[in-house]
Amino acid sequence: MTYFEDIVVGERTPVGRHRFTADEIKAFAARFDPQPFHLDETAAARSHFGALVASGWHTVAVWMRLTVAQRRRLAEAARARGESVAGIGPALGVREMKWLKPVYAGDEIAYENEVVETRFSRSRPHLGLVTIRSIGVNQRGETVISFLSTTFVERRATGE
Amino acid sequence: MTYFEDIVVGERTPVGRHRFTADEIKAFAARFDPQPFHLDETAAARSHFGALVASGWHTVAVWMRLTVAQRRRLAEAARARGESVAGIGPALGVREMKWLKPVYAGDEIAYENEVVETRFSRSRPHLGLVTIRSIGVNQRGETVISFLSTTFVERRATGE
Repeated sequence: MTYFEDIVVGERTPVGRHRFTADEIKAFAARFDPQPFHLDETAAARSHFGALVASGWHTVAVWMRLTVAQRRRLAEAARARGESVAGIGPALGVREMKWLKPVYAGDEIAYENEVVETRFSRSRPHLGLVTIRSIGVNQRGETVISFLSTTFVERRATGE
Repeated sequence: MTYFEDIVVGERTPVGRHRFTADEIKAFAARFDPQPFHLDETAAARSHFGALVASGWHTVAVWMRLTVAQRRRLAEAARARGESVAGIGPALGVREMKWLKPVYAGDEIAYENEVVETRFSRSRPHLGLVTIRSIGVNQRGETVISFLSTTFVERRATGE
């Protein structure tokens, strides 16, 4: 992750793609969201969804994993260039999270993060706050999830 | 779950308690949020948290599990009284999700749901929309998580 001062509003970054298999949809649901339409094809066929769908919490948890992996790749690339790497996190929270379309078994979701706001932290002067809008888009071009999240990002040391 | 017409704004329901162990904090993080302060005690001790903390997504996933279990208990109790049970879900989304305090290994979180708004669905006349505020409170009485979520709930058949 780049330092707070290097982050530009409007910047969009693809964070990765993930294909949701029936097995992992059911495994996540059994652990955290055991509703029939996330657990069982037959019950899901009778539901308003008509087929097995991933828990909304599963679709956002996969975004988190891909985002952490992407940050790590960026940090490693920066270190390889001999640059220092800004600390990131924790997240303050999430706003306007919308599950816009179901994610069916077999769907492949491409996630993207867009910087929508940057501001200094009043309580922690060595940190800035970055708000990103994240979306997930399926193989039919439909946006299935959208949300805003705000995270602390380290500022460059003053005088640098 | 009761029918839309029976849901009263202001009603509060405890949904259950959960103790976050170090092992499960690390297991969730390894799968979905592999940041050092969620994965490893030594790295966490060096972070701004000072000790191992649960992923925010983990704390909300446990809320989901407890909420589904509570709905199931209520549905079973209603069926045992010979009453019909309203369909619930899917959720439309989540707003204003705030991770207010860290959840450390060993913390026990008590979750509570409060109905804050009910309204008819324009697009689906047989359903209503119920917005609840959910909070999680630790054993020191500190609120660690707070968010609003909106879910479809079945209405009584007209003329009933």
